[in-house]
Amino acid sequence: MAEVTLEHVRGAHARIRERIRRTPVLTSARLDELSGASLFFKCENFQKTGSFKARGALNAVLSLGDAEAARGVATHSSGNHAAALSWAAGLRGISATVVMPRTASPIKIASVERYGGRIVFCEPNHRAREEAAEKVVRESGAEMVHPYNDLRIIAGQGTAALELLEEVPDLDVVLCPVGGGGLLSGTAIVARALRPGMRVIAGEPEGAADASQSLKSGVRTPVDHPSSIADGLLAFVGDLTFPVIQRDVDAIATVSDDEIAAAMRRLLEVLKIAVEPSGSVAYAAVAEGKVGVAGKRVGIILSGGNVDLGRAPWVTPGP
Amino acid sequence: MAEVTLEHVRGAHARIRERIRRTPVLTSARLDELSGASLFFKCENFQKTGSFKARGALNAVLSLGDAEAARGVATHSSGNHAAALSWAAGLRGISATVVMPRTASPIKIASVERYGGRIVFCEPNHRAREEAAEKVVRESGAEMVHPYNDLRIIAGQGTAALELLEEVPDLDVVLCPVGGGGLLSGTAIVARALRPGMRVIAGEPEGAADASQSLKSGVRTPVDHPSSIADGLLAFVGDLTFPVIQRDVDAIATVSDDEIAAAMRRLLEVLKIAVEPSGSVAYAAVAEGKVGVAGKRVGIILSGGNVDLGRAPWVTPGP
Repeated sequence: MAEVTLEHVRGAHARIRERIRRTPVLTSARLDELSGASLFFKCENFQKTGSFKARGALNAVLSLGDAEAARGVATHSSGNHAAALSWAAGLRGISATVVMPRTASPIKIASVERYGGRIVFCEPNHRAREEAAEKVVRESGAEMVHPYNDLRIIAGQGTAALELLEEVPDLDVVLCPVGGGGLLSGTAIVARALRPGMRVIAGEPEGAADASQSLKSGVRTPVDHPSSIADGLLAFVGDLTFPVIQRDVDAIATVSDDEIAAAMRRLLEVLKIAVEPSGSVAYAAVAEGKVGVAGKRVGIILSGGNVDLGRAPWVTPGP
Repeated sequence: MAEVTLEHVRGAHARIRERIRRTPVLTSARLDELSGASLFFKCENFQKTGSFKARGALNAVLSLGDAEAARGVATHSSGNHAAALSWAAGLRGISATVVMPRTASPIKIASVERYGGRIVFCEPNHRAREEAAEKVVRESGAEMVHPYNDLRIIAGQGTAALELLEEVPDLDVVLCPVGGGGLLSGTAIVARALRPGMRVIAGEPEGAADASQSLKSGVRTPVDHPSSIADGLLAFVGDLTFPVIQRDVDAIATVSDDEIAAAMRRLLEVLKIAVEPSGSVAYAAVAEGKVGVAGKRVGIILSGGNVDLGRAPWVTPGP
């Protein structure tokens, strides 16, 4: 496939549906009251491995022929995609090698190890990462599965929106976060095909607003030193995901780290669920009134729940 | 009714089911692995008003005749029952008066106010509470709805176990927390009627182990100064709930505050949900190996999610 379509997303769903979780869609009278809209939260924080990344990773792994699969898969990621690919490879009984910066959090390293992934450490910069990954692929023949700039990944991530629209077909707006754009492009493809009039909006951290900036200028433009508590959204939007975003996404709203932390805290206190900072960004955009939703039916994809409690932004000393 | 039976619980469910939430039952491969059992978590933290108390309170309010209802309802509670009764009264359009100690947490006061409850403050001791509540009833003719020592409340609380067993009929064990015993006695009545061979076990804080102590001695015996982070479980087991517990409950396991805090943290990190200390007590008993569950199918009622984040026991200063 040269481009992902709804049919690819449906194919991905058929491939993965028995092994992933059909995550619940939660609602809250109190959050509706606060936003003046009807909100439907697709809870990918409850997904296998703790984030939507399980969808794309499993789709990629199950898409491989037997001979390819036998050589294993590889990626570079310091976060949820690393754990998801290790998990997916384990389900197929093949090996996964993950290049991680040596500064990656111990919790994330432990997660990859628990799912049986092999870790190759590298210096914490983009170039060292890419080089180390290329070396793994060259030496092992493993199949590279990029965290987002990969059509199998985009199709897999689109299955979250597919399930959301099956459950709540009459949405006026759908929101999700954007980092490299895998989830956003998959969501937009599904939204446009199933419900052309629906608005598709992303939330992005102010400190890593490359997608927002690129959408405005019309050219993929990186941010110099991306920084945010939403550590899953620091990646630079991909050359496969950006054209889809240009074509199918209505707007990208940016939010500050304080706004993200407030959204995360409110989701915990009112909705009673743990959502990681990256997963709270789309709701933050709604909660802060950066997206016009008054009276609308609004789907919000909460993308992951892998919170490191010791570093939670709302943590303050006890009495 | 002189005694609550399965039929009363079914009647309560028919009365309340359209207004409460059918809370999800969550599972986790990781928590199963850690406990060596198959765990099914009934998530009453997602219930209306944030706890199972909505069930009993609504059942009591909807059980009133129109003339009684017109005089309103009253209770004394510093916690979830106060909010639940205010909410239930609001649904029926009648008034609720809640006697609360003047030391009650601002968050709980705000919650009662949001649901439209009228608050009468009193000194923070049992006697002042009872007297203030009696005065309200005497002056207004309001119907007293005790937090747990009330057959309508027991029947309502039993509906959580009813839903759990509808969804997972083949459980070997069911666990819930015990404070005054409303949830535990309701759960035990349902369990014994629907699945006589199933074990019914409660978790109780070490610092407020009156039910455990009473079950051992065969006589209702209060604890002198009950104290625990599980602030919803400090009440003294009731004279209506205790006989049911004696008859139908197999064991009560006690857990320390540290064990409760660890369970709460693990539910947040692995299951991705906010459960208040009182709601985490039954899982703490399983997590700490105080209940034999190896290889069993185990239902655990997580009773509420009203966490005051500023006072969460796992809160430590950030970096």
